[in-house]
Amino acid sequence: MTMSNLIDEFQEYRSKMNDKILSADNKVMKRIYSVDTLAYQEGALSVKTKEMLGLVSSMVLRCDDCIKYHLEKCFEQGTTTEEIFEVFSIANLVGGTIVIPHTRRAVEYWEALQQQ
Amino acid sequence: MTMSNLIDEFQEYRSKMNDKILSADNKVMKRIYSVDTLAYQEGALSVKTKEMLGLVSSMVLRCDDCIKYHLEKCFEQGTTTEEIFEVFSIANLVGGTIVIPHTRRAVEYWEALQQQ
Amino acid sequence: MTMSNLIDEFQEYRSKMNDKILSADNKVMKRIYSVDTLAYQEGALSVKTKEMLGLVSSMVLRCDDCIKYHLEKCFEQGTTTEEIFEVFSIANLVGGTIVIPHTRRAVEYWEALQQQ
Amino acid sequence: MTMSNLIDEFQEYRSKMNDKILSADNKVMKRIYSVDTLAYQEGALSVKTKEMLGLVSSMVLRCDDCIKYHLEKCFEQGTTTEEIFEVFSIANLVGGTIVIPHTRRAVEYWEALQQQ
Amino acid sequence: MTMSNLIDEFQEYRSKMNDKILSADNKVMKRIYSVDTLAYQEGALSVKTKEMLGLVSSMVLRCDDCIKYHLEKCFEQGTTTEEIFEVFSIANLVGGTIVIPHTRRAVEYWEALQQQ
Amino acid sequence: MTMSNLIDEFQEYRSKMNDKILSADNKVMKRIYSVDTLAYQEGALSVKTKEMLGLVSSMVLRCDDCIKYHLEKCFEQGTTTEEIFEVFSIANLVGGTIVIPHTRRAVEYWEALQQQ
Repeated sequence: MTMSNLIDEFQEYRSKMNDKILSADNKVMKRIYSVDTLAYQEGALSVKTKEMLGLVSSMVLRCDDCIKYHLEKCFEQGTTTEEIFEVFSIANLVGGTIVIPHTRRAVEYWEALQQQ
Repeated sequence: MTMSNLIDEFQEYRSKMNDKILSADNKVMKRIYSVDTLAYQEGALSVKTKEMLGLVSSMVLRCDDCIKYHLEKCFEQGTTTEEIFEVFSIANLVGGTIVIPHTRRAVEYWEALQQQ
Repeated sequence: MTMSNLIDEFQEYRSKMNDKILSADNKVMKRIYSVDTLAYQEGALSVKTKEMLGLVSSMVLRCDDCIKYHLEKCFEQGTTTEEIFEVFSIANLVGGTIVIPHTRRAVEYWEALQQQ
Repeated sequence: MTMSNLIDEFQEYRSKMNDKILSADNKVMKRIYSVDTLAYQEGALSVKTKEMLGLVSSMVLRCDDCIKYHLEKCFEQGTTTEEIFEVFSIANLVGGTIVIPHTRRAVEYWEALQQQ
Repeated sequence: MTMSNLIDEFQEYRSKMNDKILSADNKVMKRIYSVDTLAYQEGALSVKTKEMLGLVSSMVLRCDDCIKYHLEKCFEQGTTTEEIFEVFSIANLVGGTIVIPHTRRAVEYWEALQQQ
Repeated sequence: MTMSNLIDEFQEYRSKMNDKILSADNKVMKRIYSVDTLAYQEGALSVKTKEMLGLVSSMVLRCDDCIKYHLEKCFEQGTTTEEIFEVFSIANLVGGTIVIPHTRRAVEYWEALQQQ
């Protein structure tokens, strides 16, 4: 799979399935999605800091799709590769070596975002 | 992958590998499999309720294959889409937004079961 | 600690700290609390079924306070001890023997609720 | 709390509550308990090795009561302090620094077992 | 327990047991402790940001002692209550309502730190 | 995918991405990798025992790539299929039936290693 396909495929599937979930007319699911949007908005903490908080949480909980999503957001916020690796390092320290395989895939996705 | 392939592929692999595990002649593994069968049988709670309990547990523990399995069983028990989404909503609430990617795949599998 | 103290102490601390969390004026936290209320309301599934879903999720995720809370709600909904043990059995099967210590404390709390 | 109280209190509560669970007449729970006994019996692997496997699993899953139980069993099997710390080190490496607080309590319990 | 006792008791136990762990002469454990120190030092990200990353990770992994530790460090770095609650909100969103009981105890500890 | 491809593909990707992680010049990540090497060296416990500890930890934490890695190491250490299944059985008992799907993939990889 080429690098840009890696991104496109993830975004298309996520977008298509999110639409299905939201169209199912379950109020709780809809509200969870709207709280999710609210939580990452500028506040006492910057969007960039919040996205890094989302990223590190996704890494220690080992959710590849969540990691990809927050990497995209961190990229949009101008996070540097050095900063991203410091997030990775805390995730691997706190969450242990079981985070390493997810870090490998995170590095691959981060490179894809940079080569877009 | 077509929808029916999604189901067939999962069922074939699960069945083939379960056979290998059971043929390995490890008593503990065999008993775990037999307790698993016992646990979901009709009791004070109905099979349908128990399968929903199995589904929500699999979602918060984020095990895609376990989710697929319990979706199949819920489908066999006549669980409606509205009910399934209420199970999803509790899983996403209790387990957090890291359950969302698993919910996407669960919705896809649920659709495949309905189109069979 | 007497049985009724076990319940009172839990409820007082939870109530006091929830008040503090809600008074902190963080919109995201407030909305999470309100979605939480919404999710367990009567819908396609009964309140009783939803509370059992909340209970089993709390058990496999091994959150003692969440277990206590859902045990209270299950008790209010007239769940029988036989039904509660079937929820416990699925939690221990799906989540493994690490759920056993939480089951011990759940049994203690369930008894306290019955002796109230 | 004195060292021996730490052990006695844990063992009494565990024993009392296990009796209640087993007397509840839930077949699934009973079988899980009996598989649990079976799994740690001498086989291709020694009891000592199996108990260390149980210990490291309990540590990475961060279950203090399970850790205490397997520490007792490791102690009975003559596991040395040096060996125990090698189990701890793998648990902390694989499971991350969130295992450290459990390691602190494990060290305390291990000392109590030695001073018995 | 008074507020200051809450802090003192935690710090004394942590300090005493860390000493025991480090004196056990296990190289892996020692190095994990030294990497832990290294990871939170000023780098591309500030100490404050890193401590918030440690805090949110500890919350979604639901480790009360780790939460306390990072709350102390965040407090030392001048993190405001509003910022802390934004960290809490992301932890509760990503990790789900099972994080709520840990948030209650986190709020209590945060208050104790402020009243010191 | 043929059996040997299963192994080759895993090893190539792991090796390529590990190189990228180590070349990123993040000291914490580098030290985590070096502690990882240190932890599995011969000590009071044999390399074989340590690799089984790594395997069971990876199983209960449900990390497929970590499982593959430790299966390779266990294979190199001459662990028998009977012993491997005893490790599997403890992982499934302690971690619950959510470990079963990972056990299926572990059995497939173990067979691939034997047919190499």
